[in-house]
Amino acid sequence: MIKTDILIIGAGPTGLFAVFEAGLLKLKCHLIDALPQPGGQCAEIYPKKPIYDIPGFPEVLAGDLVDNLMEQCKQFEPGFTLGERAETIEKLEDGSFIVTTNKGTKHHARVVAIAGGLGSFEPRKPILDNLEFYEENGVEYFIKNPELFRGKRVVISGGGDSALDWSIFLSDVASQVTLVHRRNEFRGALDSVDKVQELKKAGKINLITPAEVVSLNGDKTLNSVTIEKEGETSILETDFFIPLFGLAPKLGPIGDWGLEIEKNAIKVNNALDYQTNIPGIFAIGDVNTYPGKLKLILCGFHEATLMCQAAYQIINPGKKYVLKYTTVSGIDGFDGTRKEAPKAVVKSIE
Amino acid sequence: MIKTDILIIGAGPTGLFAVFEAGLLKLKCHLIDALPQPGGQCAEIYPKKPIYDIPGFPEVLAGDLVDNLMEQCKQFEPGFTLGERAETIEKLEDGSFIVTTNKGTKHHARVVAIAGGLGSFEPRKPILDNLEFYEENGVEYFIKNPELFRGKRVVISGGGDSALDWSIFLSDVASQVTLVHRRNEFRGALDSVDKVQELKKAGKINLITPAEVVSLNGDKTLNSVTIEKEGETSILETDFFIPLFGLAPKLGPIGDWGLEIEKNAIKVNNALDYQTNIPGIFAIGDVNTYPGKLKLILCGFHEATLMCQAAYQIINPGKKYVLKYTTVSGIDGFDGTRKEAPKAVVKSIE
Ligand SMILES: Cc1cc2nc3c(=O)[nH]c(=O)nc-3n(C[C@H](O)[C@H](O)[C@H](O)COP(=O)(O)OP(=O)(O)OC[C@H]3O[C@@H](n4cnc5c(N)ncnc54)[C@H](O)[C@@H]3O)c2cc1C
Ligand SMILES: Cc1cc2nc3c(=O)[nH]c(=O)nc-3n(C[C@H](O)[C@H](O)[C@H](O)COP(=O)(O)OP(=O)(O)OC[C@H]3O[C@@H](n4cnc5c(N)ncnc54)[C@H](O)[C@@H]3O)c2cc1C
Repeated sequence: MIKTDILIIGAGPTGLFAVFEAGLLKLKCHLIDALPQPGGQCAEIYPKKPIYDIPGFPEVLAGDLVDNLMEQCKQFEPGFTLGERAETIEKLEDGSFIVTTNKGTKHHARVVAIAGGLGSFEPRKPILDNLEFYEENGVEYFIKNPELFRGKRVVISGGGDSALDWSIFLSDVASQVTLVHRRNEFRGALDSVDKVQELKKAGKINLITPAEVVSLNGDKTLNSVTIEKEGETSILETDFFIPLFGLAPKLGPIGDWGLEIEKNAIKVNNALDYQTNIPGIFAIGDVNTYPGKLKLILCGFHEATLMCQAAYQIINPGKKYVLKYTTVSGIDGFDGTRKEAPKAVVKSIE
Repeated sequence: MIKTDILIIGAGPTGLFAVFEAGLLKLKCHLIDALPQPGGQCAEIYPKKPIYDIPGFPEVLAGDLVDNLMEQCKQFEPGFTLGERAETIEKLEDGSFIVTTNKGTKHHARVVAIAGGLGSFEPRKPILDNLEFYEENGVEYFIKNPELFRGKRVVISGGGDSALDWSIFLSDVASQVTLVHRRNEFRGALDSVDKVQELKKAGKINLITPAEVVSLNGDKTLNSVTIEKEGETSILETDFFIPLFGLAPKLGPIGDWGLEIEKNAIKVNNALDYQTNIPGIFAIGDVNTYPGKLKLILCGFHEATLMCQAAYQIINPGKKYVLKYTTVSGIDGFDGTRKEAPKAVVKSIE
């Protein structure tokens, strides 16, 4: 059982900043995310695109924003359960919660903050017989640990940035990379398209277009895929099949937790602390709704900050918290580090 | 008469970010500030100190944050009335407002956003006969335009960062700089104290401590000050006397505008849009109060953003605004510039 003060569901920008704000209040956080990496939509959907409306950044790449947020909260040593979906919640008699993931990992906390964005990201799956049978037996939807593919043969399917970028990346890791796409045209960053073209010419990526993977073969684990190209089928031996057709967010199981839902989002008390109808459960960032709600990153930051104050009251009942400016008080990390402004000197001049 | 869509009182971080958010909605802003420069507390009180809790900045100097916010909003061409205090407000029959400053400058807008922080910064004045008589006739509390002092003799009084930094700066501009302080010890950044020491040795700053300016002399304009040092008085000829004893914020005239005030702050509807009890007047940032309010910069950013949406509805009644992501839609500046993310290409690979 993982124990923490605030259990955060969703490691997008809102969840990550909540770790920092909680840390200022000496509260520890643990995050669960269905994706293999933190950063939510910013990291998964548009890491290389600029955002223009983060206050103080005339321009920042979404991926860089995530890196900065990770850097900003790291001294408060957040725990992560990645690649797992929060599935069920149970309220104990003392008011605390146990949240269990689809893989059975259990988390215990007094406060739960749902920062689930548009929902947990689930891969769009191709329609293929036996697909589920090969999941974790040769079919992968995410590249969590590239080392899994070292010296192996992989077939990637898809025509967007993920398919392009992972083909490029794995061309240096896998023994053979085949990219199958149903059109000749790819849609992605110019860089990536050009790089795949180059690697194809160099014989490092095997490109099959316009074509589709139409069946998966193998007794216990995948050992080949059947590819149909312009009416003809052929069999290609492979260790892995990685379909990269994008991700779709689903509110999913959280929708059944007894929370008030409106327009696929969780209703919260925005007049106070972004708490839901269940005391002790908060919803912050894109996942919540209230009159005038804007699904913007900067709003999630504010919501996370106010939520942490309320969490502090729940975790430390009766204790009064006096707001301190970081500039004035500095920051004491849980890892023993201290940041502080250079002190003014009092010095005579002769 | 200056005309604009949203008149912002206070050019601190909250007011500056409001300009940006308003610009995204094609609304023009004009800002009034009692200080000679934008940036509010960050620029005036702690420009060289790090802030640690601006989301996405593990550390940023307050002055740099202001520079970034200025850069971020500049394409929306904000107007500025600096060095003047918003004094009176009048509501016209059509629901728009006229705001007049202490210097008589008039501003007309449909929406007024008060982003006045802790109040307008007013200099702490030394107790000296005739002080008011010499104001703008030799006595200056701010250095708005350093050129005013070129080739002139100045006496600066004070023992903190402002006194140190302006003495250093003016030692290159004025013909003679005298720094008078009632102690031998100065309190400020180590750099600044050392630099003044050095300039003193080089004869570029004339230091008189422990001493005080006890009277101001001159017929129409200041021509000398009387200085008392260890019981002895002497007269020093000078063109300017600049007392730098810090600034104190005063809610001031805004307190009499008929707004609901609580704990020296303006009550707003935080459940919706940060509007005050007077429709069309909003209060954002440090200047407002509501249950759970935190006087933090990041909260002002969120409040400014929601306020702009409500302002849009007031200025464009009946028009529906659909939120656009800056990443997706880019930004069209009022100055004709356009920022946008590099487009994805659709390109075939042969
Ligand atoms: C193309 C694009 C451009 C954008 N441009 C801008 C912009 O310019 N400015 C701006 O402010 N915003 C922009 N946005 C929106 C912005 O990305 C979101 O507002 C932001 O990501 C919300 O952050 P969040 O942390 O609340 O949620 P998310 O980033 O959505 O993160 C939520 C995380 O929770 C996880 N999760 C959800 N449910 C579960 C569960 N049950 N178990 C485990 N994990 C779960 C998800 O997997 C996800 O990783 C843009 C979005 C897109 C797609
Ligand atoms: C030493 C110090 C350290 C701090 N550290 C942090 C920190 O680490 N993190 C954090 O989030 N916050 C910190 N703060 C607080 C932060 O600076 C404020 O929250 C922030 O400046 C508020 O911004 P604002 O734009 O709402 O108001 P302000 O910055 O106060 O700006 C308001 C402006 O309005 C002007 N004004 C007011 N009334 C009038 C009028 N009638 N006419 C004309 N002009 C008027 C004032 O002159 C002022 O320039 C710190 C503050 C101090 C003093």
